[in-house]
Amino acid sequence: VFGRIDHIGVAVEDLEGAVAHYRDKLGMREQHRERVEEFGVDAVLLEIGEGHVELLAPLSAESGVARFLKSRGPGLHHVAYQTDDIDSALESVRAAGIELIDDSPRTGSRSSRVAFLHPKSTGGVLTELVEPAH
Amino acid sequence: VFGRIDHIGVAVEDLEGAVAHYRDKLGMREQHRERVEEFGVDAVLLEIGEGHVELLAPLSAESGVARFLKSRGPGLHHVAYQTDDIDSALESVRAAGIELIDDSPRTGSRSSRVAFLHPKSTGGVLTELVEPAH
Repeated sequence: VFGRIDHIGVAVEDLEGAVAHYRDKLGMREQHRERVEEFGVDAVLLEIGEGHVELLAPLSAESGVARFLKSRGPGLHHVAYQTDDIDSALESVRAAGIELIDDSPRTGSRSSRVAFLHPKSTGGVLTELVEPAH
Repeated sequence: VFGRIDHIGVAVEDLEGAVAHYRDKLGMREQHRERVEEFGVDAVLLEIGEGHVELLAPLSAESGVARFLKSRGPGLHHVAYQTDDIDSALESVRAAGIELIDDSPRTGSRSSRVAFLHPKSTGGVLTELVEPAH
C-alpha cells in the first residue's frame, strides 16, 4: 500500500525558532515553506534524505494543530507515508476497516494529494497518506 | 549530521494485535523481532521502503515505554535518524547545546548503536540517532 515514510509532522508554537533550531543544531536545511489554508497551518519542510521533517504552526485556534498543542504540547504530530496512487490506497485501507478522517484526498503542500486516517483506528498514530504532485 | 529517517517508534499495549493490524490493514510486513533488554521493550520492525515502523511494547512498568503509555496512551513515541558515525553525530549535537539522554551510544536492535536526545531540547520530540551495525 505504502512506498516509504514521506515525512514526520512536528507541531511547533514558534515556527522561526524551530526552523533555526533544526538548522543550527541538527543540520537540517529548509527546503520548502508554504501556508496551507486547507489545514490551517504554516508548514516548513526540512530536508532529510529522501524524506522530510514537516514543522507545523497553527494559523488560528481552530486549527487541528492548535488543538494538539493545547492538549499535548509541541512534539510529534503525525507520520506520512508516500503512495503513488492515493485513491487506490484509500480504497484499500477503507476496505480493511480503517476509519478515515478524509474520505477523499485534499490538497496538501506542493500540490500533493493527501488524506488522513483516524488515529483511533491506527493505534493512536495520526497517519497521513501522500501522493506527490507529478 | 543525519542521513535519513531510519524509523518511527510507536508505543503499543498489545504487540501481537499491533503487528496483525499493520500487516492486515496497512500491508506492512514484519521484518525483525527482538527483545531489547537495554530499553525494556519487545520491538518489532515493520518494513516500509528503506525505513521501518518500530512497534514497542514494554517488558515492565519501569520501562520508559510503559511510562509513556501510562501518561499519553498508545501512539507516536520517537523518531530515529540514521547516521554513519554516531560518535561524531553525538559530539556535534552536544557541541550545539542539545541535551543528551545517552552521553554515549547504547546497543539497540540488530546490534545497532543508538543514542537518544532529550525531548526538552528538541521541541518535545524524543529523537534517536542510529548507526546500523556494519
